Amino acid sequence: MIKTDILIIGAGPTGLFTVFEAGLLKLKTHLIDALPQPGGQLAEIYPKKPIYDIPGFPEINAGELVDNLMEQIKSFEPGFTLGERAETIEKLEDDAFVVTTNKGTQHKAPVIAIAGGLGSFEPRKPPIENITEYEDKGVAYIIRDPEVYRDKRVVIAGGGDSALDWSIYLANIASEVYLVHRRNEFRGALDSVEKVAELSKLGKIELVTEAEVKHLHGKNELEAVTIKHLKNGESHIETDYFIPLFGLSPKLGPIANWGLEIEKNAIKVDNSYDYQTNIPGIYAIGDVNTYKGKLKLILSGFHEAAIMCQSAYQRINPGKRYVMKYTTVSGVSGFDGTKKEAKKEVVKAIS
Amino acid sequence: MIKTDILIIGAGPTGLFTVFEAGLLKLKTHLIDALPQPGGQLAEIYPKKPIYDIPGFPEINAGELVDNLMEQIKSFEPGFTLGERAETIEKLEDDAFVVTTNKGTQHKAPVIAIAGGLGSFEPRKPPIENITEYEDKGVAYIIRDPEVYRDKRVVIAGGGDSALDWSIYLANIASEVYLVHRRNEFRGALDSVEKVAELSKLGKIELVTEAEVKHLHGKNELEAVTIKHLKNGESHIETDYFIPLFGLSPKLGPIANWGLEIEKNAIKVDNSYDYQTNIPGIYAIGDVNTYKGKLKLILSGFHEAAIMCQSAYQRINPGKRYVMKYTTVSGVSGFDGTKKEAKKEVVKAIS
Repeated sequence: MIKTDILIIGAGPTGLFTVFEAGLLKLKTHLIDALPQPGGQLAEIYPKKPIYDIPGFPEINAGELVDNLMEQIKSFEPGFTLGERAETIEKLEDDAFVVTTNKGTQHKAPVIAIAGGLGSFEPRKPPIENITEYEDKGVAYIIRDPEVYRDKRVVIAGGGDSALDWSIYLANIASEVYLVHRRNEFRGALDSVEKVAELSKLGKIELVTEAEVKHLHGKNELEAVTIKHLKNGESHIETDYFIPLFGLSPKLGPIANWGLEIEKNAIKVDNSYDYQTNIPGIYAIGDVNTYKGKLKLILSGFHEAAIMCQSAYQRINPGKRYVMKYTTVSGVSGFDGTKKEAKKEVVKAIS
Repeated sequence: MIKTDILIIGAGPTGLFTVFEAGLLKLKTHLIDALPQPGGQLAEIYPKKPIYDIPGFPEINAGELVDNLMEQIKSFEPGFTLGERAETIEKLEDDAFVVTTNKGTQHKAPVIAIAGGLGSFEPRKPPIENITEYEDKGVAYIIRDPEVYRDKRVVIAGGGDSALDWSIYLANIASEVYLVHRRNEFRGALDSVEKVAELSKLGKIELVTEAEVKHLHGKNELEAVTIKHLKNGESHIETDYFIPLFGLSPKLGPIANWGLEIEKNAIKVDNSYDYQTNIPGIYAIGDVNTYKGKLKLILSGFHEAAIMCQSAYQRINPGKRYVMKYTTVSGVSGFDGTKKEAKKEVVKAIS
């Protein structure tokens, strides 16, 4: 059982910055995220795209913002449970919560901060009748560890950046890479499209366009796929893996069943004070929450995190008064023993 | 009469970022600040000090943050009335406000955003009986244009960074520089203290320590000061200027008389919606406002600015629905004709 002060569900920018604000208050944090890496949408969906509305950054790439936040929170040593989705919550007699993931990992904390963004991003699944039978038996919707595919045969489906980028990456790892796409045109970064064309000419990627995977075959594990050619007939490809990469679709997921007040697929919070939900001790911050006038901006999540942590501090330390200190004046003392602080003024006699 | 959509009072970080959020909504902005440069406290009080709690910046110097914000808002071409203090406000029949500064400059706007930080920073004045008689007649509390002092005699008083830095700067401009300080020790950056000691040895700064200015003399303008030596007697220095640099003290100032609801020297706002004050059309954001759970953090002002601008948009464009766009998707179109945007995806055929 992992124990912490504030259990943060969602490791996007809001979740990550919560570690910092909690750390200033000497509160420990642990994050759960269904994605295999921290950063949420920024890391998963648009790492190379610029953002222009983060205060103080005329322009910053989403991936760079995540790197900066990771650096900013490093000394507060947050824990991470990645690639697992928060599934159930239980309230104990001592008022603490236990959150269990879909893989059974248990986390205990007196305060829960749901920073789930637009929800857990679930892969869009293609409409193949028997696809669920082969999940984790050859079918994967997200590539977590490319080494799994070394010297294996892989069929990737999709026509966007994700399908292009992974086809390129796996071309040098897998024994065979097929890229199946409904159309003849790909929608992605120019250099990715050109690289795929080049690898196709070299025979390292087998392009199967104007086609889609219609059926999966195999006894216990995936062994082959049936391809429907949109213009003419069907074909058969023997393969170890089928990886449809049709993007991610946000879903509130299991959190929707936690008894929280939900409005328009978001969690209602008290924005007049501390972004707490209808369940005391559970807060919701960032894109996952809603209130009158809510703006789904990254900078909103940052502010909500700061306010929420003050309230969490009171909950964890009842009756104790916290006097806010400015980092410029007091510096930042990490849990790892490091201390960042402004150079002290000197008092020096002259003459 | 300067006309704009949102008149921002205070050009600190919150005021500056308001220009950006307003600009995204195609609203024009103009800023008034009593200080001679934008940046508020960050530029005036601690430009060289690091801040650690701006999201995405593990560390940034206050001055650099101001520079970044200025760069971020540049294309929205904000107007500035600097070195003047917003003094009076009047509501016209067409529901617009007219704000007049202490120098008589008039500004008209349908929306006022007070981003006044801890208030207008007023110089701490030394307790010299007749000092007000010589204000603008030889006595200055802030150095706006150092060229004023070229080839003049200057007496500076104070023992901190500001007194040290300006003594160093003026040593090469003024004909004579006296630095008067009550103690023998100076409290400032090490290199500043050492530089002053060096210039003192070279005869470019005359150090007068353990002393204070007690009286000012002169018919119409300042001609001389009387120095009281704390250990022994008095002396007399002929001078053109006396510049006491004892720091700035925050005061809400004339805004306190605008009929706004004030609590604990801050302006009460509706944080459950749009940070509007009790006077419709006047908002208060950043350190100048107060509400339950308020945190006086720079990042709070940023979020409050974003929310406030949405409400201002409704006030200026009644009934018009604004659909928020993400800068990553839609880019940023400046009023100067520039456009920043993410590289578009390409759709390219392969084969």
